[in-house]
Amino acid sequence: MSEWIQKKLRLPAFPSGYHLITDRITEAFPEIKNYRAGILQVFIQHTSAGLTINENADPSVRRDFQTFVNELIPESYPRFIHTDEGPDDMPAHIKASFFDSQLQIPIQNGRLALGTWQGIYLCEFRTHAGGRNLMLTAFGEKD
Amino acid sequence: MSEWIQKKLRLPAFPSGYHLITDRITEAFPEIKNYRAGILQVFIQHTSAGLTINENADPSVRRDFQTFVNELIPESYPRFIHTDEGPDDMPAHIKASFFDSQLQIPIQNGRLALGTWQGIYLCEFRTHAGGRNLMLTAFGEKD
Amino acid sequence: MSEWIQKKLRLPAFPSGYHLITDRITEAFPEIKNYRAGILQVFIQHTSAGLTINENADPSVRRDFQTFVNELIPESYPRFIHTDEGPDDMPAHIKASFFDSQLQIPIQNGRLALGTWQGIYLCEFRTHAGGRNLMLTAFGEKD
Repeated sequence: MSEWIQKKLRLPAFPSGYHLITDRITEAFPEIKNYRAGILQVFIQHTSAGLTINENADPSVRRDFQTFVNELIPESYPRFIHTDEGPDDMPAHIKASFFDSQLQIPIQNGRLALGTWQGIYLCEFRTHAGGRNLMLTAFGEKD
Repeated sequence: MSEWIQKKLRLPAFPSGYHLITDRITEAFPEIKNYRAGILQVFIQHTSAGLTINENADPSVRRDFQTFVNELIPESYPRFIHTDEGPDDMPAHIKASFFDSQLQIPIQNGRLALGTWQGIYLCEFRTHAGGRNLMLTAFGEKD
Repeated sequence: MSEWIQKKLRLPAFPSGYHLITDRITEAFPEIKNYRAGILQVFIQHTSAGLTINENADPSVRRDFQTFVNELIPESYPRFIHTDEGPDDMPAHIKASFFDSQLQIPIQNGRLALGTWQGIYLCEFRTHAGGRNLMLTAFGEKD
């Protein structure tokens, strides 16, 4: 038997940076345990924040992401013309496209089949963002 | 009831840059309205153009993408050896991998569940490209 | 009739760089031929290696990826603090997020609907990595 479930998850405002949200997602979606084989899609409905899967243990990894990516795609880039919404806006759009707007994570035997060291990051690219909306969609075979 | 629909969409030649194609996709795929819950996949069958989801309103965002990304991954990079197809070819391959070759967009109640400001971009990385082929695949639950 | 198949594919250790693995995947998953319309997902269960779809013919493309990306995201970046696992570790995490951890490839009439020049790359970002685990998931409509 195949089944689709969709739900919105409203995340609170996070500071600029990279934040582990794996537990928030699995807690919002206990029905994952009912799928024998499937996919959980996480989709962010914004263009100045993103998603990625990366290291889930050492917070220094997430700090290094912030340091390096802010230098690679800097607010001070002199040729940006889309500057009305502040100097952090256009870098946020570019970062959003270099990271992901959607993740598809396999479900196997009722659990996300993430590797041992993999976690889901919310990548907040604005300096003063509000909350963010995720659309979660699970589909697959139930027992 | 579950149903799969696949179709090819041939895009005309676009100039180098970032182009909104949301309406072309939804017009080519009116069957989206029949899915209660599902996914639309957009897959580009090329390695020197890409896809992404980003801001759908202000054209200056798309111009800034062009300016910044062309400077980050420049044609003038002196250590490229794959240069037989012109100076724009190898940067196009790298950009194609930093952006996306596939997008999966949730369908909810017959509509793409994009955020208010989200649109689908064709990212044309070649200077003189021809048309581009997209494979569109929708699947999900119908009413 | 809809059907889900999942299997693990253990890749051997590869040297740092970009490696074509299309044939390994299709050989591990002969059941692709049974799907009239579907998706094959390739998911890598690691955070210091990645996946992408790019040019499948000329090895110089893959060498240029290595040269350029190693210079864009350098081991010598002085502000990294996550350095306990060696100078190649933090660049590997960032590269993993700029490339992909998952690919979804359409299946049409029993074949991956890749473009003529598209192949699947394993992107090995560590200098001395071991083997890598892929989770392969196919789903779709069978004849």
